Amino acid sequence: MVEKRVTLKEIARLCELAPTTVSSILHGRKTYCSQAKIDRVHALVKKYGYRPNVGYNIMTGRATNIVAVVFSQKRITQHEMLRNLYMNLCTGLNERNYAMYTAVLSGEDSEQKSLVRSLEERGCRAFLFIGTPKNYSELEKYLLDKGHRVLGFNNRQASDGVCADQVGAYIRYLDFLELGGRQNIRLALTEEYMTDHLLPRLPVERQARYADCGMKVDRVGFVHGNSALHYFRLGYRQAQKEVQRNPGVEAMLFATDYHVLGAAAALSGMGKLANAIELFGMDDAASVCFSGVRMTTTRFDMDAAANLLMERLVHFKPGIQMLEGDIVHYPDSKETSFFHSS
Amino acid sequence: MVEKRVTLKEIARLCELAPTTVSSILHGRKTYCSQAKIDRVHALVKKYGYRPNVGYNIMTGRATNIVAVVFSQKRITQHEMLRNLYMNLCTGLNERNYAMYTAVLSGEDSEQKSLVRSLEERGCRAFLFIGTPKNYSELEKYLLDKGHRVLGFNNRQASDGVCADQVGAYIRYLDFLELGGRQNIRLALTEEYMTDHLLPRLPVERQARYADCGMKVDRVGFVHGNSALHYFRLGYRQAQKEVQRNPGVEAMLFATDYHVLGAAAALSGMGKLANAIELFGMDDAASVCFSGVRMTTTRFDMDAAANLLMERLVHFKPGIQMLEGDIVHYPDSKETSFFHSS
Repeated sequence: MVEKRVTLKEIARLCELAPTTVSSILHGRKTYCSQAKIDRVHALVKKYGYRPNVGYNIMTGRATNIVAVVFSQKRITQHEMLRNLYMNLCTGLNERNYAMYTAVLSGEDSEQKSLVRSLEERGCRAFLFIGTPKNYSELEKYLLDKGHRVLGFNNRQASDGVCADQVGAYIRYLDFLELGGRQNIRLALTEEYMTDHLLPRLPVERQARYADCGMKVDRVGFVHGNSALHYFRLGYRQAQKEVQRNPGVEAMLFATDYHVLGAAAALSGMGKLANAIELFGMDDAASVCFSGVRMTTTRFDMDAAANLLMERLVHFKPGIQMLEGDIVHYPDSKETSFFHSS
Repeated sequence: MVEKRVTLKEIARLCELAPTTVSSILHGRKTYCSQAKIDRVHALVKKYGYRPNVGYNIMTGRATNIVAVVFSQKRITQHEMLRNLYMNLCTGLNERNYAMYTAVLSGEDSEQKSLVRSLEERGCRAFLFIGTPKNYSELEKYLLDKGHRVLGFNNRQASDGVCADQVGAYIRYLDFLELGGRQNIRLALTEEYMTDHLLPRLPVERQARYADCGMKVDRVGFVHGNSALHYFRLGYRQAQKEVQRNPGVEAMLFATDYHVLGAAAALSGMGKLANAIELFGMDDAASVCFSGVRMTTTRFDMDAAANLLMERLVHFKPGIQMLEGDIVHYPDSKETSFFHSS
């Protein structure tokens, strides 16, 4: 069932342009053509129903408008904020005439390489890695050497991309607490996060102050089922243990909002008043506003993040762009906190 | 940078099989080969690093192991349960050596057709439509005529696929309420849902009983931003209006759990006791267990749904398979309801 199709060459002849120029126009790249010429190309493409032969372009290594979105591991596909980003990318890339492949890495070195190679063979010429894959630098180097576009989101090893500034948000929590004269502050973050990410961003005298404030929590592995409940239980236990060990604790900072919901439940179970200990989470989970829990979190705009990434796909910008979050205090609206206060 | 690659033909020669048989084995289709032969094929593929030439296969209309997952509209990409399904598909298809394209339909007829055709040209030979696209039957017919595999999930017009039995869940709510002697029951569902889906599943005498119990709510269009909050506000207003109009209402059934959270807030604001009016939602949203609201919902197993769909991709089964949900009552666990009761 092969249909007679108009080719790029024929479109180019009708516009009196070189085929490579027509191709550039169709891929939204910069050319020296006038807007009138560009409009004529688009009009002819529409009139004759021209479509690039994707199979041929893939086989011959030509441009394809295919983007691979790659999750660094299975667990982060459950992350609410990253899902919002992903779905924005999904609709946004479609609107920009890109097709999108999705893949999830396993953490196993040879499997990862083979998955990335297979995406390349399927015609992906741009790769966006969400989260930090194991041995990322090697994958990145391989793809860059092949001439592909490689971006990261919340990818600590990426040399190009966008990153939600969670460390910056934790520092703003600390500023806020210091301003309020709070001394006994505890951070329920992994030791690695503390020493590699948080402390290096603080000036030396503040580094010393917070070096021993980490609660040395375990790293979270893969979570089967409902990860929100899993984090809830972790936060519950972390808060319970901390209050027993350190009854004077004034504030606790957690890795996710679900940890905070668990911590709030633990504190309430121990008879602590709702505002005796200040709780801080991250990423503004949807459940918080329905929980009635008093807490502070940080919201990152995933529409903005998706747009920044999609711009970078087309227009090369080196380096990592940090995305600042907005600090949000809950309960924030009368409407959703209604049924808890009555 | 073309590397010397081993071809399917060479693998077939080494195994003393026809190339088409080797291809069938690699695509997981049934053959008459012994397990030993099948193992030998996989071993040789691994040894020589054989990879199919995707571009060539796409160009020539051969099998590609590429699946398109297509959302019927932008709004449903925000749906928590569908996101769970989607992410399960995403990891599951990768594990089964399928690559996955994702697309979101616009509802605009010619755009939809062109998007589907472009996915086809990119090598998709199987299409899974989540939700019911506008003019779906036409899309389905086009793809089936081309010999593709076409499945639906929660797609009311699909002739093949899986469907979460939400109507069945509403009927079980009604059974449960009738058993408890509740008479004044209200359903906050669209008129279309009532007449086209719910009522036809009831026996005639029950149809008459519930024909006027619909609250005739508006259909939800596209929601910008946080759809959970949007549903919360809808449920809030729907419940408030209903209680003013019909103070004796004993039970209300809603389209989502977020509607229920809103309704609970409205009732609490009107001084109604938490168990004066029974509330029923749908799809077991993660926020419910953190809200402390007393309600009933239905949980559909999205691991099971993804597995059923992936099985169907490989082994043809005609018809729609209904997925039964589990009824869940909240608050269900001491742990998460802790901080609301104290």
